[in-house]
Amino acid sequence: MSDYQPRIQDMQFVLSNVLGAPDQLKALPAFDEVDADLMQQVLEEAGKFVGEVVAPLNRDGDEIGAKWQDGKVTMPPGFQSAYQMFWQAGWPALSAAPEDGGQGLPSVLEIMLYEMLSAANHGWTMAPGLLHGAYECIKHYASPSLQETYLSKVGTGEWLATMCLTEPHAGSDLGLSRTKATPQADGRYALNGTKIFISGGEHDLTDNIVHLVLARLPDAPPGPKGLSLFLVPKFYPNGERSAVHCDRIEEKMGLHGSPTCVMRFDDALAEIIGEPGKGLNAMFVMMNAARLHVAMQGIGLLDAAWQKADAYARERRQMRAPAGQEVKPKSAAEADFIIEHPAIQRILNTQRAWVDGGRVLAYQTAVELDRIKHADKDTAAQSQRWCALVTPVMKAAFTHQAFHGGSDCLQVLGGHGYVREWGIEQIVRDARVAMIYEGTNEIQAIDLVVRKIMADGGQSLNQLLDDMKAQSQTETAEATQLRKLTQSIVSAAPQDPSLGHRVADDYLRAMALVMLQWAWQRIDAALDAQTPELKSRWQAPSKAFRQWVLPEFAMRSHIIETQCQAA
Amino acid sequence: MSDYQPRIQDMQFVLSNVLGAPDQLKALPAFDEVDADLMQQVLEEAGKFVGEVVAPLNRDGDEIGAKWQDGKVTMPPGFQSAYQMFWQAGWPALSAAPEDGGQGLPSVLEIMLYEMLSAANHGWTMAPGLLHGAYECIKHYASPSLQETYLSKVGTGEWLATMCLTEPHAGSDLGLSRTKATPQADGRYALNGTKIFISGGEHDLTDNIVHLVLARLPDAPPGPKGLSLFLVPKFYPNGERSAVHCDRIEEKMGLHGSPTCVMRFDDALAEIIGEPGKGLNAMFVMMNAARLHVAMQGIGLLDAAWQKADAYARERRQMRAPAGQEVKPKSAAEADFIIEHPAIQRILNTQRAWVDGGRVLAYQTAVELDRIKHADKDTAAQSQRWCALVTPVMKAAFTHQAFHGGSDCLQVLGGHGYVREWGIEQIVRDARVAMIYEGTNEIQAIDLVVRKIMADGGQSLNQLLDDMKAQSQTETAEATQLRKLTQSIVSAAPQDPSLGHRVADDYLRAMALVMLQWAWQRIDAALDAQTPELKSRWQAPSKAFRQWVLPEFAMRSHIIETQCQAA
Repeated sequence: MSDYQPRIQDMQFVLSNVLGAPDQLKALPAFDEVDADLMQQVLEEAGKFVGEVVAPLNRDGDEIGAKWQDGKVTMPPGFQSAYQMFWQAGWPALSAAPEDGGQGLPSVLEIMLYEMLSAANHGWTMAPGLLHGAYECIKHYASPSLQETYLSKVGTGEWLATMCLTEPHAGSDLGLSRTKATPQADGRYALNGTKIFISGGEHDLTDNIVHLVLARLPDAPPGPKGLSLFLVPKFYPNGERSAVHCDRIEEKMGLHGSPTCVMRFDDALAEIIGEPGKGLNAMFVMMNAARLHVAMQGIGLLDAAWQKADAYARERRQMRAPAGQEVKPKSAAEADFIIEHPAIQRILNTQRAWVDGGRVLAYQTAVELDRIKHADKDTAAQSQRWCALVTPVMKAAFTHQAFHGGSDCLQVLGGHGYVREWGIEQIVRDARVAMIYEGTNEIQAIDLVVRKIMADGGQSLNQLLDDMKAQSQTETAEATQLRKLTQSIVSAAPQDPSLGHRVADDYLRAMALVMLQWAWQRIDAALDAQTPELKSRWQAPSKAFRQWVLPEFAMRSHIIETQCQAA
Repeated sequence: MSDYQPRIQDMQFVLSNVLGAPDQLKALPAFDEVDADLMQQVLEEAGKFVGEVVAPLNRDGDEIGAKWQDGKVTMPPGFQSAYQMFWQAGWPALSAAPEDGGQGLPSVLEIMLYEMLSAANHGWTMAPGLLHGAYECIKHYASPSLQETYLSKVGTGEWLATMCLTEPHAGSDLGLSRTKATPQADGRYALNGTKIFISGGEHDLTDNIVHLVLARLPDAPPGPKGLSLFLVPKFYPNGERSAVHCDRIEEKMGLHGSPTCVMRFDDALAEIIGEPGKGLNAMFVMMNAARLHVAMQGIGLLDAAWQKADAYARERRQMRAPAGQEVKPKSAAEADFIIEHPAIQRILNTQRAWVDGGRVLAYQTAVELDRIKHADKDTAAQSQRWCALVTPVMKAAFTHQAFHGGSDCLQVLGGHGYVREWGIEQIVRDARVAMIYEGTNEIQAIDLVVRKIMADGGQSLNQLLDDMKAQSQTETAEATQLRKLTQSIVSAAPQDPSLGHRVADDYLRAMALVMLQWAWQRIDAALDAQTPELKSRWQAPSKAFRQWVLPEFAMRSHIIETQCQAA
């Protein structure tokens, strides 16, 4: 079965026809020279690179995988040369600032690029996927001299970067981290400790690797406020090798193309980034962008799984479909294409409903990220609200869907889905990790409900829904109900400290469905002016959303109400 | 992390306290010597064998897997000797008839044995799992001379068996099969064709392998009615090797301990089983038992995943749990056990709700299977109704839950769940196949709704619900609503030939929830007489069922109603 191929036309329709993103962006001074043609051109070039260079390496990435020997990691065949082509063509620096060697283009193009890359080859994409956060972190917090050495190297992707956060006993709870930073006479710090689950901690894609490491100064208080952020490269500017060692890589369910490293810091000399005790702040500055990247992995992988299932369903014949019995002469073939069977149509259209609607939300979120940077204060505050509330919803909902909906797509292939030959089981295995990293999906839900919704008594949620209502000119019953649920939680919470935690997953799902409903309203509105063929492409998933996806809202609403009543 | 260990006490509680199965069985003349003590003893011995011999081989089964070379398959380390111990101890023949070398014990013991085996080592368990169907098939349809040679060999498990049904272009649609059977002068048939996805088509566990093969006689009509069933062994009684070849084994997502073979029949001399053109009937006779076996894989694998998640949640500390803040002095530890966090409790108790409730349904179904064979005609008809309706529901619902709920259990381990070291990702990969084989879950749903519910206008569904009502002395609102939904589908279907197919998945889920609700009513009733400790063990999943699982019913009901109205 053929590799994933980006379908630029579908993505472009959401970007331009549904969202009018080029016009939204043109209104920002930073992008006054960006127009629909330029964006289209970038996307087409990106699609070509992804389809021709990155997608064909996916199978070997899984089957051969990254290999560790004596502290060195050899990446799967073709990964290195593809990466060298990638950074030299300027792709990692698409939205980086021109003064750092970037192209200064809108974030939405970067987001769309990563959607395609993740769909084509999740393992390979992990490598450049991490440099964007590191770039932002160095740009905002590092000293001028550190920036001099590292900013454009990381910003352009010439060197790749890691985020060294997790330790064996400190997963979701970074406050438990124990890695020590001991001040040295020369103003540097000696790092000692072990970090685990470090994606790309060691590899042969680039000449150097820049590690950003959370560690604790000798006098630091326990907990998250005692953490500072440090930078230590694989090779120092003088060419000397640092005392950062990759002790092994993990055997995993999937994502074999990305080495997940155990990193040992053995008196590794590092420099501090930002102020002591502010390490988590520096990490959190890039959190919304990083979570949106992970949401794009979800959308991309689900689209890749859908492509395989759709192609299979159009060439495989099994049994008579119930509707087909009426219209088709019995003599035509022994059986109908399985895409004519209602169970298969439901799976395919439901997953399209998630992918298409997800793109609306994701691309708009990327526009909001640019507004936070470049728009006036009021607009930026509104955009900040969108990103704060919508990003955890997207991260959790779309990584969930990539795995569970990807499994539904696998089901379309029957036994052929379970064997490696067709490549769809790899997608399901690869996708599973995205529900865990960058904050587990349960933590996204707690972040949303406890830290964001409850923290301001539901005010920003109501404002977000007001903004959405203004754009779609109507408010659905579900959106109104979400306001009521929010009020119920906020009212009941003071008597019941665990209520927010108990309803967090349901609330996140309910909100995801309201967001997706809004996305489909926008798509439906954009269809009015279109040709019948184009309409029929989008109407099937629109109907699937209403028939099969949205009914979950009432279930979540019921669960939340019951919990609030029991509070 | 330690291997799966059967928890006989939990299983025993369902068998005896909840269902009173020993008394139910004692009422059948065939089992008048069976009592609770004997059953307990068999289960404890079985648990010991599973925990000590089979479970420790699971990791190697996955990582080393079955290996093919030059047509021969070598099973993973330890598999052969464990299997030899297994059959020599009489385990495969637990419920086989004494005259065939069996022990003549109730089916429920076999079902409970296979639940434990699947939980311990799904790959290994595939080998003996298939012999039961083959034994029944030979017993009911083969000629006396074939029975003379094969019946007790297969019944005792001395020789293993396969079911050769699927072909490259004929998966769910067996009617498309093309393998040919050409009559020979000596009364035998020469088979020619290729079968795929043949579990255990070749291996080194036993001296001989008995293949049951669907093929088409020269004058056979097209479609399912042209299929006949044949038997061809790997070695004929005279020691000669048959022309059945294993051309390769599949690379799969999981289940690496079970070789999935491509089998080529190259003028392989076979004998017919039963009448020409009745091949599918012979296969279908064992369908309910085979599907129940697959449902047990689901229950067992989910229990195994739950065990790992539960153990991890009791030793891993991360962050403060909201309820814990109140009661625990801050000084006790840096963080709470994750089992104190609501999100983790929800996952663990929800999966227990499925496992515990599933056991009630499965063990009762096994009792009904014995009633079909041994009870009076009226009771047997009632049992037949139970099995016909409940078995597809269980196969689909519990294999679905093993994968999706198993993935939830994986989530409890965070990043540690995604690495191979902890063994839980293997469970999720292994479990995925059970949603596909023995009839995909979508086909189970169509079988239930179109072939069983709609075929008699909902009559047998109503009778089943009457029987359930008689046993639990009350009918829930959900059960009453299921009757209404059934009536709506039956009324609307004549105008809308695809309605049954469109609502099949939702109907199966709705029915699964009604069945599980009934199971939990039975458990709750059995708790009245118990100690507080034992009550608390069962009350948490009981509450989880009502809070988190049952609300799906209203969603399914809404979807079905909407489809009926649109009909």
